[in-house]
Amino acid sequence: MSIFKSIKQVTAAIAAAAILASPAMAEVVKVEIPVIEKEIAVDNKGTMQTMWTFGGTVPGPVVRVKEGDIVDFTLINEEGNKQSHSMDFHAAAVDVLDEFAAVKPGEKKHFKFKATSPGVFIYHCGADPMVEHIGRGMYGVIIVDPKEGYGENYPKPDREYVIVHSDLFEPGTTAEQMLEGDGWTSTLVNGKAFHYDPLHDPNASLMLQSEPGERVRFYFVNAHVNKSVALHPIAGIWERVYNSGHPFNLEKGIQTYLVPAASGATLDLVSPSDRDTNNAIVDHQMKGALNGGISVLMNAEGADPSLGKKGNILIR
Amino acid sequence: MSIFKSIKQVTAAIAAAAILASPAMAEVVKVEIPVIEKEIAVDNKGTMQTMWTFGGTVPGPVVRVKEGDIVDFTLINEEGNKQSHSMDFHAAAVDVLDEFAAVKPGEKKHFKFKATSPGVFIYHCGADPMVEHIGRGMYGVIIVDPKEGYGENYPKPDREYVIVHSDLFEPGTTAEQMLEGDGWTSTLVNGKAFHYDPLHDPNASLMLQSEPGERVRFYFVNAHVNKSVALHPIAGIWERVYNSGHPFNLEKGIQTYLVPAASGATLDLVSPSDRDTNNAIVDHQMKGALNGGISVLMNAEGADPSLGKKGNILIR
Amino acid sequence: MSIFKSIKQVTAAIAAAAILASPAMAEVVKVEIPVIEKEIAVDNKGTMQTMWTFGGTVPGPVVRVKEGDIVDFTLINEEGNKQSHSMDFHAAAVDVLDEFAAVKPGEKKHFKFKATSPGVFIYHCGADPMVEHIGRGMYGVIIVDPKEGYGENYPKPDREYVIVHSDLFEPGTTAEQMLEGDGWTSTLVNGKAFHYDPLHDPNASLMLQSEPGERVRFYFVNAHVNKSVALHPIAGIWERVYNSGHPFNLEKGIQTYLVPAASGATLDLVSPSDRDTNNAIVDHQMKGALNGGISVLMNAEGADPSLGKKGNILIR
Repeated sequence: MSIFKSIKQVTAAIAAAAILASPAMAEVVKVEIPVIEKEIAVDNKGTMQTMWTFGGTVPGPVVRVKEGDIVDFTLINEEGNKQSHSMDFHAAAVDVLDEFAAVKPGEKKHFKFKATSPGVFIYHCGADPMVEHIGRGMYGVIIVDPKEGYGENYPKPDREYVIVHSDLFEPGTTAEQMLEGDGWTSTLVNGKAFHYDPLHDPNASLMLQSEPGERVRFYFVNAHVNKSVALHPIAGIWERVYNSGHPFNLEKGIQTYLVPAASGATLDLVSPSDRDTNNAIVDHQMKGALNGGISVLMNAEGADPSLGKKGNILIR
Repeated sequence: MSIFKSIKQVTAAIAAAAILASPAMAEVVKVEIPVIEKEIAVDNKGTMQTMWTFGGTVPGPVVRVKEGDIVDFTLINEEGNKQSHSMDFHAAAVDVLDEFAAVKPGEKKHFKFKATSPGVFIYHCGADPMVEHIGRGMYGVIIVDPKEGYGENYPKPDREYVIVHSDLFEPGTTAEQMLEGDGWTSTLVNGKAFHYDPLHDPNASLMLQSEPGERVRFYFVNAHVNKSVALHPIAGIWERVYNSGHPFNLEKGIQTYLVPAASGATLDLVSPSDRDTNNAIVDHQMKGALNGGISVLMNAEGADPSLGKKGNILIR
Repeated sequence: MSIFKSIKQVTAAIAAAAILASPAMAEVVKVEIPVIEKEIAVDNKGTMQTMWTFGGTVPGPVVRVKEGDIVDFTLINEEGNKQSHSMDFHAAAVDVLDEFAAVKPGEKKHFKFKATSPGVFIYHCGADPMVEHIGRGMYGVIIVDPKEGYGENYPKPDREYVIVHSDLFEPGTTAEQMLEGDGWTSTLVNGKAFHYDPLHDPNASLMLQSEPGERVRFYFVNAHVNKSVALHPIAGIWERVYNSGHPFNLEKGIQTYLVPAASGATLDLVSPSDRDTNNAIVDHQMKGALNGGISVLMNAEGADPSLGKKGNILIR
């Protein structure tokens, strides 16, 4: 399926970029994402619900490029879908009426853009009514790594995780209801309530992990249709926060960071190095937290070396 | 009418200030604003509703001075009004119980203040109950240009636009209802839903415009009674953002900027220089956007040279 | 009672720290806080309501240490209480499953942590359901003064005040209702609506005070269960704001600062030095302000020299 091809291409491009010596050369990164309207599991128990998806998952695949790269993008609105769809990359400076226009089922939309601004960005469908396309699952993350690479101001992380908070609405909720918050059922964390929190959901089988003392970088995106997220790492402090993920926007020692709807932030957590600990990454707005917005990060010796490394940063 | 006189005086003062060589001399800028309770058009179709206004419009006239200037202000609560009113400039450091006190219909309130802090500020009526005075239209923008002028940290813009997001409530909505959001009908952009968005409202006849590649500076004020605004330029990235408009507070590469109620921010957008594009400046909280909070910025050769230039920065 | 002992110990430790020459030595600061479920006055009129408290007051006692100090903490869940309780210091990097675990009535929880990040932090009970423990009053403030002390970037204040905004719910409101905002009655400012605002509540007898021209530093904590606070000093401008209270995060000339739920900020106000003035510190979201979130700061010659000085920074 094309989505796997797309991920592979992106990963390959990144790997290539990482090998290149400075000055980095602009890469052309081909990304192809099919829109698939399908039933997927929306909780840890496996409850199925029809969602509108980028690539068959909620959120869609992570796109990762380097500042200066050209993203050569194709959206494929698959035959058999019922809706028109579009792609709006927040990392792009293009024409809302051209590149971001919606296409009908069976059609494709191709465009290129240069990723000139480093950071972590949401991408989402902007087809009318946008609230419904986002409310039914059409969003994902694009990371644009800074061309300067790492340094004192933007240190190299030991692990990286992508976290997307978003809304789940009951099947059949209309766009008008979504606008008002009616039919809202839970906070999704990468597509499922309490996705990484076995403490609050016995059906949860995953946790985020790191070794004690590692710098864990979170690429956070808020895909809620209306709400900000007040992101706090229980039993820890964000050692650094970068608004929108841009290395220039450094803040230090932040307890709770407010990420507006349709925005992103990069947040570093460094756990104590001399002992095991656990953090809980929460939306500290209680309605968001207690309805699904809690993720456990276990900082313990023997942490799974495959988690938060290389391409494995959005854990499914 | 006095309001026109006031605008003219302000404009004249600014023009004078611009001519002066450094070091800039403090100007005394006389500003007189009458409060007028009257029917005005509250949408692009021309629907009339009784509003409480500064100077006969919603928002009121833009006041623009230079850091260090003395604002010599007179509020005129016109004979025939039914309410007491006041003026609260967020750019002023004065006495809430003196300068910002309410005056009855037929009375005036005169006070002076030195604009010591550069930025973009809301002004609003603070008379009791404040939620109703703001909810019925009593707000505007004061820009305090930094005395250092432009430089690398605060580059000269090619165009400037003032954008105010606020609430429209149904006629007859009480203060208590406004507090709860009851009776809310739409997001006003400079006084009208979809003011600059012919795509979402066929009655809209205006758009914001710039030439490709121009630096367009937005002086944004959130006049909602309760809500933050998550401001995003669809198909673009805020090249710079200054919290509260102060040049010290530079952030770069922001996708979506959260402006709290009764605050302001200065945000720069620089469109691609090699082609025509369009942006849509939106409150990315869907309830705010889809009820009126969308403005089109057309970046095209031949952009109207009168828009966003000199005094023409709040387009009516 | 142990709480008084705890405050005394903390105060003593601070005093000691202030005397020490640089380089500061890490102090061990013993803090003991009993949890007491009891009736307390929740407004200026003296209406009694059963709250769950740290140390018998809402908010709990201010804990103040210096960066690098070891906080040696004991939580005492008193015999006779009905609920399990816990302590979550946002200033600590520990294990959510160990240090922050809940203990039953009659039990104690002891742990230590090093305060490595300067700033102003909320502490709160994290026992299940957290929304109810916070909604019934279990929060307070810990200030971690920077080890560098004062300087150009972080000037010495003349007075200091702690302000906590939070929610009051009707007696009997359930956790589920609190999540939705049902049963909400008012904004508490340090435990009472209009605590320092005789203008809006004739039963209020306190005001915050300073001499004209003094630098007044506010250590602000948002203990609302769901809401951000848009903090504005009417008739003034925040001369400086530090996100989360960290001296690195300096912003200047901010009119309204948004503090997310369960976060804090340090905000400086400097009134005119040549005259008397009054400010009103408000949540400029009208629902927050007009339901209790307004505090008067009187800047006048002859200001009470005991207010906002030494240990007297949270005025009861």
